[in-house]
Amino acid sequence: MGRWKPDGRGRLQEAALALYSERGFDQATAAQIAERAGLTERTFFRHFADKREVLFAGSALLQERIVAGVTDAPAANGPLEAVAQGLDAAATMLGEFRRDLTRQRQAVIAANPELRERELTKLADYATAVAAALLQRGANEPQATLAAEAGMTVLRVALQQWASTHDDRDLNSIMRDSLAELRAVTAGV
Amino acid sequence: MGRWKPDGRGRLQEAALALYSERGFDQATAAQIAERAGLTERTFFRHFADKREVLFAGSALLQERIVAGVTDAPAANGPLEAVAQGLDAAATMLGEFRRDLTRQRQAVIAANPELRERELTKLADYATAVAAALLQRGANEPQATLAAEAGMTVLRVALQQWASTHDDRDLNSIMRDSLAELRAVTAGV
Repeated sequence: MGRWKPDGRGRLQEAALALYSERGFDQATAAQIAERAGLTERTFFRHFADKREVLFAGSALLQERIVAGVTDAPAANGPLEAVAQGLDAAATMLGEFRRDLTRQRQAVIAANPELRERELTKLADYATAVAAALLQRGANEPQATLAAEAGMTVLRVALQQWASTHDDRDLNSIMRDSLAELRAVTAGV
Repeated sequence: MGRWKPDGRGRLQEAALALYSERGFDQATAAQIAERAGLTERTFFRHFADKREVLFAGSALLQERIVAGVTDAPAANGPLEAVAQGLDAAATMLGEFRRDLTRQRQAVIAANPELRERELTKLADYATAVAAALLQRGANEPQATLAAEAGMTVLRVALQQWASTHDDRDLNSIMRDSLAELRAVTAGV
């Protein structure tokens, strides 16, 4: 998800997340979301293919940004440093979305097995794309896959922390700190 | 999956994996699997709840073994060392299954989006259980989650490598080497 704006699309996102939180994802309908946002159902479907799309809009763009971050990292950077540049790009994009809405989104996904599977699949797809970008940069397997997967774990953990706490740090800082924690834990410190 | 045995259950696993590979998972039926194994459909359902269960039997036991490995690791061990003990337990159990059947299983899962989602969810559940075991041992967050998730990545990568190559090493060795690769990549070597 990119920056939240108080326009039709943004109001639909806000209304959808409120309804999913209150009634559960399965119970909410596109008509109810549109009504709550003060818009028509037709407007809802102009912005989103279905009610699941509200939660996953921007996924393809996010993957592009992450991969671009990895690809554009200085050639001298090792695989994990390149992944860190991808994570920074992700944090910049995700950090522009409203934190309270991100918190609601995470809770809605955690409460619904199908949405959770979709979220895990999305992260696995990002990891596959990042590993491919690392191989292009000259990394070897299994280091490319390990660095990519570890990076997506850091992304998930940092996003969860940013959304769920009242931590003053921005998402970029939390992302960098989570990566540092991963380095510490794998170094056995 | 535990040790493969040439009994009814083992023959059903072998027949199922051959059929899933040849026709695709969605096309194969329990009746066909039983016929190929020279057994009745009733016998199939005595061993497996459904045809998906053939691929995921033993998941709960595997999770128990991994968690026990983590829990029983020496108290002085850091989170990743404890996870390494869990991975060793996993490698011992998974390494007893036939390598050619494991290769077929991985390929069948990779080819089917629903099976892939199920596999990812299973690994995410293992990670959650391992993180809880690490917290019990006195680890903190986010290190517990990061170590647990990184460990499950190592498990997945090592299993893939063991199944897909003609590498002479046993799964325990590949698992340890993959963990060493993770350490190397996060250390930036």
